Amino acid sequence: MGILGLGTVGTGTVELLLDSTGRNPLLSEIEIYRVGVRELNKPRKVKLPDGVIINDLNAIVSDPQVDIIVELIGGVEPARSLVLRAIQFGKHIITANKALISRFGDEIFTAADQAGVYVMLEAAVGGGIPVIRPLKESLSINRINTVTAIINGTTNYILTQMQMGSGSFDDVLTDAQNLGYAEADPSADIDGLDAADKIAILASLAFNGRIRLEEVYYEGICKVSKIDIVYAEKLGFVIKLLAIAQQDKKDNLPAPLSVRVHPTLVPKEHPLASINGIYNAILVEGEPIGQVMFFGPGAGAGATASAVSSDILNMVAELKISAQTLNPILTWKLHKHNEITPIEELITRFYARILTRDEPSVVGKLGTCFGKYGVSLESVVQTGFQDKLAEIVVVTHDVREGDFRQALKEIESLDTIHSTPSIFRVL
Amino acid sequence: MGILGLGTVGTGTVELLLDSTGRNPLLSEIEIYRVGVRELNKPRKVKLPDGVIINDLNAIVSDPQVDIIVELIGGVEPARSLVLRAIQFGKHIITANKALISRFGDEIFTAADQAGVYVMLEAAVGGGIPVIRPLKESLSINRINTVTAIINGTTNYILTQMQMGSGSFDDVLTDAQNLGYAEADPSADIDGLDAADKIAILASLAFNGRIRLEEVYYEGICKVSKIDIVYAEKLGFVIKLLAIAQQDKKDNLPAPLSVRVHPTLVPKEHPLASINGIYNAILVEGEPIGQVMFFGPGAGAGATASAVSSDILNMVAELKISAQTLNPILTWKLHKHNEITPIEELITRFYARILTRDEPSVVGKLGTCFGKYGVSLESVVQTGFQDKLAEIVVVTHDVREGDFRQALKEIESLDTIHSTPSIFRVL
Ligand SMILES: NC(=O)c1ccc[n+]([C@@H]2O[C@H](COP(=O)([O-])OP(=O)(O)OC[C@H]3O[C@@H](n4cnc5c(N)ncnc54)[C@H](OP(=O)(O)O)[C@@H]3O)[C@@H](O)[C@H]2O)c1
Ligand SMILES: NC(=O)c1ccc[n+]([C@@H]2O[C@H](COP(=O)([O-])OP(=O)(O)OC[C@H]3O[C@@H](n4cnc5c(N)ncnc54)[C@H](OP(=O)(O)O)[C@@H]3O)[C@@H](O)[C@H]2O)c1
Repeated sequence: MGILGLGTVGTGTVELLLDSTGRNPLLSEIEIYRVGVRELNKPRKVKLPDGVIINDLNAIVSDPQVDIIVELIGGVEPARSLVLRAIQFGKHIITANKALISRFGDEIFTAADQAGVYVMLEAAVGGGIPVIRPLKESLSINRINTVTAIINGTTNYILTQMQMGSGSFDDVLTDAQNLGYAEADPSADIDGLDAADKIAILASLAFNGRIRLEEVYYEGICKVSKIDIVYAEKLGFVIKLLAIAQQDKKDNLPAPLSVRVHPTLVPKEHPLASINGIYNAILVEGEPIGQVMFFGPGAGAGATASAVSSDILNMVAELKISAQTLNPILTWKLHKHNEITPIEELITRFYARILTRDEPSVVGKLGTCFGKYGVSLESVVQTGFQDKLAEIVVVTHDVREGDFRQALKEIESLDTIHSTPSIFRVL
Repeated sequence: MGILGLGTVGTGTVELLLDSTGRNPLLSEIEIYRVGVRELNKPRKVKLPDGVIINDLNAIVSDPQVDIIVELIGGVEPARSLVLRAIQFGKHIITANKALISRFGDEIFTAADQAGVYVMLEAAVGGGIPVIRPLKESLSINRINTVTAIINGTTNYILTQMQMGSGSFDDVLTDAQNLGYAEADPSADIDGLDAADKIAILASLAFNGRIRLEEVYYEGICKVSKIDIVYAEKLGFVIKLLAIAQQDKKDNLPAPLSVRVHPTLVPKEHPLASINGIYNAILVEGEPIGQVMFFGPGAGAGATASAVSSDILNMVAELKISAQTLNPILTWKLHKHNEITPIEELITRFYARILTRDEPSVVGKLGTCFGKYGVSLESVVQTGFQDKLAEIVVVTHDVREGDFRQALKEIESLDTIHSTPSIFRVL
């Protein structure tokens, strides 16, 4: 086996493979033949024989001694080129790289299909949580209706801390960085892009077709304020960054998918409402199974190494049966693209917090404007005052997003309306 | 494929296999060749070609046309004899029968090992929830510390209803029977035996050794009263029937396992505390993964059929690669017996509700008696009066169960003590 990368996950994986007592005995059949890194002189936490750690990664992926390449570098390049080259040389691939798979899954799966090699990626979604393999193996008999997930630990930690009153978004982010729960550049997490990568992968699996990442709508958590968390709480909700992939229906027939990431008001009694801190959870709803949920640590060296190593074990087990014929359930044959509905077509409830200069007159005007676009209101509450402006929180019934946005645009143009600081979707 | 049994799960499975549009295409390669039932003349919900449904089950398990036997009869006999005979004839086995596996797993796995056939049993634990396969495949790299589970839907439904104030144990049980959530003879569920079967299977898998069912301690829920649920709630707990398998440690080395089923006070913030109604959940804690939980429907025709059919699909996929060499991860090679600690050696906290004739003097006496046996008390609360008797609820710190029982025996012999209506362990 050749491992590319010896950072957080690479080190965790090598530690796990070297400490085999009391674990699956198949481990003893695996040899860590090469580990590729960028800087040869960095001190390493794991002890490997001389000559195992090298910095010529191209040599590893073409080495005839190597059967399996484990890609733990991260990012798109050089990971993409190395993985493609490894496939050309007939190596089976294990990766934890969601960015690579969500962007270049197409290219990689096609190449793997032609070369007759496995690509396994349990660690790419949900860290240590078994979810890719259960979806492929245990749930593939189902018709999936929705996948609803908390799959970014950083943002879930920040929202949980804010919920518990630990401070504003910025305070909590700084804490999270100091604790190692958020990276120095947290933008991919905060902006929802990391969750978008992951839900794209889950959606392609659950709905059996490729997903164009650029069609996945995503919105981050930086607009979630403490005050919205408090109001949501009073209305019976918690705010979570949800990643959702949903099989829409039209006239009871499957229509395009809705695939999206955004802060969402989740009813307190919903199974995802109590998933806190850095934990992740993936809720799958299908027919005939109903609802199943997978919960666990979404990141961290040990948990992620568990997922990577389980891919290694299972790949070794399959290859022991046959190195020629692949297990058809474990390959990625995504022949079609899944069509995705634009976000304007989404049918959802909305929460909006509106600041107004003239509270008494505004409720009627809101009603009229919303009514004009077919938006009906579930509740309208005058919640308080901010800087002498009356604050109104509305929750709508189900509405087409495009219609809601148009109504809101008209409302925001009214003289009495100062601004709409927060708009969130409601589950 | 030959299916034995066309009851709840059998019918669900046949319906699923016949309705293959939009499901895994491998389904189309499976033929339902025979279905065995007891009464040929019963009306059936599923339409199968003439001659498929027969009542000679012995003929099915020895039929050379059949590669896979799916056992959905339930109970020990004739299921055991049929499965063993099928194995002798080289058939691969899929079963949903926890009673059979927990009692005769040994015999069946040994026979299967000799014959070189698979035995798959995803549906035997947790209904539709993927848990057997994830434990085998995704978590087998971990050293498991504990499996803590709610794996009996009937009792969880009853406890949840009692918790919500829907009535006494007997009222709720009657309702559950009317709703089809409890069987006409609910004793195996209520008494904890069904959960004991399932935790024995999970423990053998998680700790890689056979379990003697007779060594698994189990206690049912019939002693859980509304009043205990109320007191538990005030103390910050909910009462759940937990099935627990735990790797004890002595001097930091693995000691015998503790495997048991009993009503348990679960802290409200614990992930299992919010698993309500007929849902099941299995929480696995291991190294390096940390905590992962699998949640979903623990019974029902559709959910269980999903688990049975996923075994069918995966078995077909493996057999397509090779009918000779089995996937080593999917076989059951349990060469040793796991040693199990007797319940007296358990270290746990206890909750006890004590009725006394003379409240003022009794608290001191309780303290003295408990102290004599090394039982230290976390809290002692005089909760009220029942039939002119003062009621005292104590919660202990961690204590050896044997010591606690001895102390309690001495306490119960005191003149001032009337009785101890409830004793539960605390998680
Ligand atoms: N961290 C987590 O909790 C987590 C969880 C789930 C998935 N993942 C995924 O796992 C992958 C690895 O993440 P990580 O946190 O382990 O990353 P990391 O700590 O940054 O480690 C990256 C490793 O790759 C090597 N590397 C980077 N660029 C290279 C290049 N151009 N040539 C050769 N080697 C190069 C680095 O070498 P040097 O050591 O020489 O610098 C380092 O060993 C990513 O795809 C990530 O998304 C991570
Ligand atoms: N029900 C659930 O939700 C659930 C969930 C998880 C696991 N399971 C397990 O699944 C298995 C089946 O349960 P079920 O609820 O489907 O049972 P069920 O409804 O009672 O069906 C039993 C079937 O087996 C047949 N049968 C029974 N004894 C027989 C005999 N001596 N000879 C021939 N056929 C016989 C019956 O035939 P007739 O139809 O002719 O009477 C019937 O078709 C059990 O092991 C159970 O523990 C059930």
